[in-house]
Amino acid sequence: MYKIALLQLNLDGNRQTNMTKAKEYITEASKNGANVICLPELYEAFYFCQRENPDYFDFAEPQDDLSFTEFSKLAKKLNSVIIVPFFEKRDRGVYHNSAYMIDADGSKAGIYRKMHIPDDPCYYEKFYFNPGDLGFKAFDNKYGRQGILICWDQWFPEAARLTAMQGAEVLFYPTAIGWHPYEKGEEGDRQHEAWITVQRGHAVANGIYVASVNRVGFENHEQNNEGIQFWGSSFIAGPQGEIISQASDNKEEIIYADIDLQRLENVRRNWPFFRDRRTDFYGGLTEKWGRG
Amino acid sequence: MYKIALLQLNLDGNRQTNMTKAKEYITEASKNGANVICLPELYEAFYFCQRENPDYFDFAEPQDDLSFTEFSKLAKKLNSVIIVPFFEKRDRGVYHNSAYMIDADGSKAGIYRKMHIPDDPCYYEKFYFNPGDLGFKAFDNKYGRQGILICWDQWFPEAARLTAMQGAEVLFYPTAIGWHPYEKGEEGDRQHEAWITVQRGHAVANGIYVASVNRVGFENHEQNNEGIQFWGSSFIAGPQGEIISQASDNKEEIIYADIDLQRLENVRRNWPFFRDRRTDFYGGLTEKWGRG
Repeated sequence: MYKIALLQLNLDGNRQTNMTKAKEYITEASKNGANVICLPELYEAFYFCQRENPDYFDFAEPQDDLSFTEFSKLAKKLNSVIIVPFFEKRDRGVYHNSAYMIDADGSKAGIYRKMHIPDDPCYYEKFYFNPGDLGFKAFDNKYGRQGILICWDQWFPEAARLTAMQGAEVLFYPTAIGWHPYEKGEEGDRQHEAWITVQRGHAVANGIYVASVNRVGFENHEQNNEGIQFWGSSFIAGPQGEIISQASDNKEEIIYADIDLQRLENVRRNWPFFRDRRTDFYGGLTEKWGRG
Repeated sequence: MYKIALLQLNLDGNRQTNMTKAKEYITEASKNGANVICLPELYEAFYFCQRENPDYFDFAEPQDDLSFTEFSKLAKKLNSVIIVPFFEKRDRGVYHNSAYMIDADGSKAGIYRKMHIPDDPCYYEKFYFNPGDLGFKAFDNKYGRQGILICWDQWFPEAARLTAMQGAEVLFYPTAIGWHPYEKGEEGDRQHEAWITVQRGHAVANGIYVASVNRVGFENHEQNNEGIQFWGSSFIAGPQGEIISQASDNKEEIIYADIDLQRLENVRRNWPFFRDRRTDFYGGLTEKWGRG
């Protein structure tokens, strides 16, 4: 049994204040007993992918730069695992949407690079990020074994399944998702509900905890588009898809849950889906489409 | 645009009365404008898999026997597509849990054999059924193109994905699922909610309609076990997982929904998940497990 915490934050264009805020919230979560603490996607800045602007590559940093060293020190000090999603500069013109898992001793437990990259109005991520090449992973740390997936990954059952099959106990989904103001009225509830439902579905299908942490608040950083109302609503679901904890849609906050490995064991004994997968007929999943 | 109907029925040990009831409900659904009508799993009998009893193989029939010929005549008469799940005797000792799709002209549009076979207390299907060998399919008929999956298949995202990739507009799930009376109090709500959630998740992840039709009522046909309280709750979800129609948990009834191909088109344009699948990293899905 260990405790996880999700930090639902509002973030702006100032790397220094974002880092300071992140550290304060991590420290609070740790004081409240959290063993594994996760930040939202791309914590270091506003959600710059609302625009295609080459200047925003300045937010990126190489591996082992400040987003590692600063949180490594903090992880060690607090004896907590910290998941830090960041904008990775791998080389000139080669960028990823990545996340560290930093172990409680400050060492790097692993790194994940976002595999599924969206490109929708105001989510122009294909401009910024090279799709990940490290595959679907789970990492051991002091408290357990968890996987990291990032935002758009959450719509893909394949990602959840493959990460669960790596022995993850929890799927963490650092996220940046919200409403376009112009469609919130008509589409908002259905979009929001679909986002929660598909992830609860991953929890059920894989008998696994799902922990999804979103940013919150309105962002319109160039004042020349309509902006995004990030919908918060960070949540943690148990291995039958039941909601254990859920945040508001309008303020910064921390939510917590206990990860109960005995419950995981019980659920998988009673709903033994992994016994019956028809792997002899799943080859078509590596195709783009099933016909034509 | 076409209309589908799900027949939520209570079934007993008498093949003749079950068939008569099925025909009456199909006729009513057709009169109410349904173009594609689906019966629950193994419509011809009580849910005999509660016990392992070799006598129950008597419920099986070869292909093109009564469950085809009778409903073929009815399909032609009503100008409706009918999905008929039945206990298939392929040869001596070779049985499947199958379903016909019968086209509106009475011809066979296709047959599906249940791919994932459960074996849980009171659901002893591995005793009766050879796992299907026809793969995941969708079939064209007069009104559109739909896939059939059966009950336990509904917990497997791979089955939904592969059937969607065959161009299905709707996933039909004939089902027989319920509560063990001894655990309904403690586990009932969570089981029931998980069942709906995982299927709504398939609708979201695949931008597809999902139509799940369950039997209803208490069955304890040998009076020597605790029986199953089939939970009804048949439902139809739209391509963002929204519930369009849902039946009660305690009575026979028909539910309907319009299948709107323009809406399918719109959802897939706005949530283009099939654009971004990382098929280059999905090979592990054909493995039993990801490590060890």
